Amino acid sequence: MKLLKQLCQIHAPSGNEKNMTDFLLNYIETHKVQWKVQPVIVNNEDFQDCILLVFGEPRAAVFAHMDSIGFTVRYGKQLVPIGGPATKTGYTLTGADSQGEITCTLKYDEEEGELSYDYHREIDRGTELVFACDFRETDETVQSCYIDNRLGVWAALRLAETLENGIIAFSCWEEHGGGSVAYLAKYIYEHYHVRQALIADITWVTEGVQPGKGVVISMRDSLIPRRSYVQKIINIAKESGVPYQLEVEGAGGSDAKELQKAAYPWDWCFVGAPEDNVHTPDEIVNKKDIDSMVKLYQVLMEKL
Amino acid sequence: MKLLKQLCQIHAPSGNEKNMTDFLLNYIETHKVQWKVQPVIVNNEDFQDCILLVFGEPRAAVFAHMDSIGFTVRYGKQLVPIGGPATKTGYTLTGADSQGEITCTLKYDEEEGELSYDYHREIDRGTELVFACDFRETDETVQSCYIDNRLGVWAALRLAETLENGIIAFSCWEEHGGGSVAYLAKYIYEHYHVRQALIADITWVTEGVQPGKGVVISMRDSLIPRRSYVQKIINIAKESGVPYQLEVEGAGGSDAKELQKAAYPWDWCFVGAPEDNVHTPDEIVNKKDIDSMVKLYQVLMEKL
Amino acid sequence: MKLLKQLCQIHAPSGNEKNMTDFLLNYIETHKVQWKVQPVIVNNEDFQDCILLVFGEPRAAVFAHMDSIGFTVRYGKQLVPIGGPATKTGYTLTGADSQGEITCTLKYDEEEGELSYDYHREIDRGTELVFACDFRETDETVQSCYIDNRLGVWAALRLAETLENGIIAFSCWEEHGGGSVAYLAKYIYEHYHVRQALIADITWVTEGVQPGKGVVISMRDSLIPRRSYVQKIINIAKESGVPYQLEVEGAGGSDAKELQKAAYPWDWCFVGAPEDNVHTPDEIVNKKDIDSMVKLYQVLMEKL
Repeated sequence: MKLLKQLCQIHAPSGNEKNMTDFLLNYIETHKVQWKVQPVIVNNEDFQDCILLVFGEPRAAVFAHMDSIGFTVRYGKQLVPIGGPATKTGYTLTGADSQGEITCTLKYDEEEGELSYDYHREIDRGTELVFACDFRETDETVQSCYIDNRLGVWAALRLAETLENGIIAFSCWEEHGGGSVAYLAKYIYEHYHVRQALIADITWVTEGVQPGKGVVISMRDSLIPRRSYVQKIINIAKESGVPYQLEVEGAGGSDAKELQKAAYPWDWCFVGAPEDNVHTPDEIVNKKDIDSMVKLYQVLMEKL
Repeated sequence: MKLLKQLCQIHAPSGNEKNMTDFLLNYIETHKVQWKVQPVIVNNEDFQDCILLVFGEPRAAVFAHMDSIGFTVRYGKQLVPIGGPATKTGYTLTGADSQGEITCTLKYDEEEGELSYDYHREIDRGTELVFACDFRETDETVQSCYIDNRLGVWAALRLAETLENGIIAFSCWEEHGGGSVAYLAKYIYEHYHVRQALIADITWVTEGVQPGKGVVISMRDSLIPRRSYVQKIINIAKESGVPYQLEVEGAGGSDAKELQKAAYPWDWCFVGAPEDNVHTPDEIVNKKDIDSMVKLYQVLMEKL
Repeated sequence: MKLLKQLCQIHAPSGNEKNMTDFLLNYIETHKVQWKVQPVIVNNEDFQDCILLVFGEPRAAVFAHMDSIGFTVRYGKQLVPIGGPATKTGYTLTGADSQGEITCTLKYDEEEGELSYDYHREIDRGTELVFACDFRETDETVQSCYIDNRLGVWAALRLAETLENGIIAFSCWEEHGGGSVAYLAKYIYEHYHVRQALIADITWVTEGVQPGKGVVISMRDSLIPRRSYVQKIINIAKESGVPYQLEVEGAGGSDAKELQKAAYPWDWCFVGAPEDNVHTPDEIVNKKDIDSMVKLYQVLMEKL
C-alpha cells in the first residue's frame, strides 16, 4: 500500500488539486509502459486540473475525485471548512503560507460553533489546511485521513493496469459542491458517446453495510440512479462471484450529482468500499473490501 | 376517466419510470391514427425512459413528468422517501420483490421521525413501494394517488389528439431532484430552436387558488419565470375566455427548475389544475379545472 | 455619480430586467462613439434580457448582474420575497399595477414571519415591488438601495470606455437562483474560447474587509474558485499598485455559481467593492473602493 500512503499524504483540497494532478501525471507516465493498453491522456487548460485516461474503445467511464476536505484560514485565527470535515479539537492540520510550512492544531468551540487554529503566529489569509497524514496498516485494514477518496484514485490506477476499453476520469471539487464533472461528462459523451458511469468513491459503514463484507453497490443516496442501470450492475456483480453489499441511503452524494443534472443522458452507479470514521483523520477500511472493489471494477468495465 | 385511472395505477416512482414509458408508447402507437397530425416519436437509450412527441413545426414544448413519489426499502423494515410523500401511518403501499407482489402498510414514528413498513416478512433491500391506487370519481371530482402528475400526462395525451405544431415531452425524476429535462431541453432547442415551455403539472389549492375556479397559471414559485413570457401567457388566456386563476408562491418547483438552470434561454410557465390533499393517496381535483386545463393548453399551443 | 443614481432608480427585479436592458442598450448606443473600441452588441431573444458587449479579441469576461431584490404581491396584502431583501417594517416600496403607480410601506410581522404591505387598496396579484430609491452622496460615500449591483453595472460601463479586448456580460436573475449565466457562459466559450471570468458585484464589509481599504478580491465564498486562477489575479493586483483587500468567506454566492456548475471549464474570481447595510435601502459604499474597483478591472482585463 505504498502508493496509497503516498496519495493520502498529498495536499490537494477542493479547488487546489494541482499537486495530485502533477503526481498522477508523473505516475502515469512512469507506469503506463507496464499497462496492457496505452491510454490517451487528456490534461490541458480546457480540463483545468482534471485528467482523463481513454483506453481502447470505451463503453463506460469511471469517475474518481482527487480532492480532499480541509479548512481555509479566514481572519485572525478563524477557519472556514472545505467540504464537510469532522471538527474535533486537537486534530493536527498542515499547510504552507508565505512564511513557510505549518503544522498546527484544530480548535472547535461547540457553543459558538466557531472553528479556529492554535499556532504561534497568524497564518496568511486564504491558506488551506488539511489533516496531517498518519498512515496505519495492519493485516486487515488501512487507516488514514483521505482514504476518501485517495483509495478511489488508487483503485482506478490498479484498474488502469489491465483496462482494455474504458475511460478513467480524475475529477476536482467533489467535496465542495462539484465543478468539473459537468464538463468531463460533456466531453466524454460528445467524443465517445459514452453514457455509462461508475463512481469510484468511498461510502459509510452502517447497520446495513459492514466492513469486510465486500465492495458496496449503492442503489441510491440523496439521488436515485436509473433502476435498470443499477440492476444491470447488480446482475454483473452477482454473476462475477465477487463479494458485494447493497446500500440504500436517503442522504449523501458524489460526483454522480453532476451526471444526474447534466444535459446528457448519463446512467450512473456508485461502487466503492465502505469506511468507518468518515471525514476524520482516522478513516479506516477493510482490505477485503479494497480487494473486491478492484476486482468488481475489472469485471464491470469488461461487461458493461 | 378510464385512461386517467389506468395511469394512476401504474408503478413508476422516480428513477424507475419504465412501466409508464411502455404504457405510453403502446397507447400512442394504438391511438395516433386518430390524431390530427402524426408526431415523430423519440425514445431511445439517448433519452433514457423519456418520450418526445414532435408535431409539425413546433414553436413551444409541453413538459409532463411521468414519475411519482414513493418509498425505497432500506435495511430491516426501514423506508426512505422518494420525493416528498405524505407519511401517515396506515397508508397502503404496493410493490414487488424477488418473492412476489407486496401489499403492506406504512408506519411513521413521529417522535423518532422514522419511516417503516408493516409486513409479515422483510422486503428485499432497494424495493420501491408506492401508494395503492383507490380511484374515486364523482360528477364534480376525481380522487386518487398520483393525480400529480398522471393528470398532467393525461392532459398532454388529450392535447396530442388535435395538436398541429408543438412538442410534448414526457420526463423523469421530477419528484426527486430532476435529471432528464436538462437533456430534453438541449435536444429540443438544438434541433427545433424551440425555447418556449409550458409545464403541465398539478399545483395546490390555497387561499388564493380554489377548486373549480379554473386552471392555474403560476406567476412564480420558488423560482421566477421571465415576466414578459408569463404576461404573454396571461394575455392569451384572457382573450381565450377559458377560466383561469393566477398563482403566486414563494416555494415549490417543477420541471421548470431544470429549464431555468439550463445553458439554453428557455422561457417557461407552469399551467395546471390545482389539487387538494397534495402528495397523499387522496389527491383530489375538480373536473372543471381539468376541463379548463385541456382547453387552455389547446389555445396556448396554437397562439404561442 | 449621475449615471449611478439613474441606474439605482430603475425598476428591474429578478425576472423582469427589461427596463435595465432598455436603459443600457440606449446608453451604450449613445456613448459608444466615445469608447476606445466599438464592441459587438449581442441582445436578442436567444439571450432573453441579457446583453453581451464583445471588444476586440477577448481573453476574459466580466459578469455584472442587472437584477435587484424585491417583493412579489401574493394574495390579499401578502408579499413573497424576490431574492433576500432586508425586511424592516417601514421601508418604502414602489411599483405599478393595472390601476397605476404605487408607493406603499413594508410590514414585517416577526412572530408570524409574515411579510405584507400597507396601502389603501389591494395591489394586483403578482405585482413586483422594489425599494424606493433615496440616493445620497457625500465626499466619501454613495448610499442607496441597489448599490448591489448597479455599481457593478456602472463599473462595467466605465471599463467599457477604454476596454480593447474583453467581454462584458450583463446578466439576469442573480439575486434569485440564477438562470442566464449558464447560457452566456456557453455562448462565450463556444464562440470566443474564453474561460476566464471576473464577477463585478458587491460584497460585504466584515471584520476582515473594511470600507476605504480598496476593492475586494474574494478568495472564496460558499464556493471555492480554482486556486491557481485566484493567485494569478492577486499577483496582478499586487504588481498594479491598486489598493485591494483579500476576502475569505464560507457563505454567499454570485453569478460564479453558474460558472462553477457549467459544462465548460470556467475559472472565476469575484472582484468588487464592499458595502455596508447589505440588501437594505441604505446600502453604502466608500468612493475610494469604487475608484480602486474600476482601476483594478482596467488592469486585470489588460493582463489576464
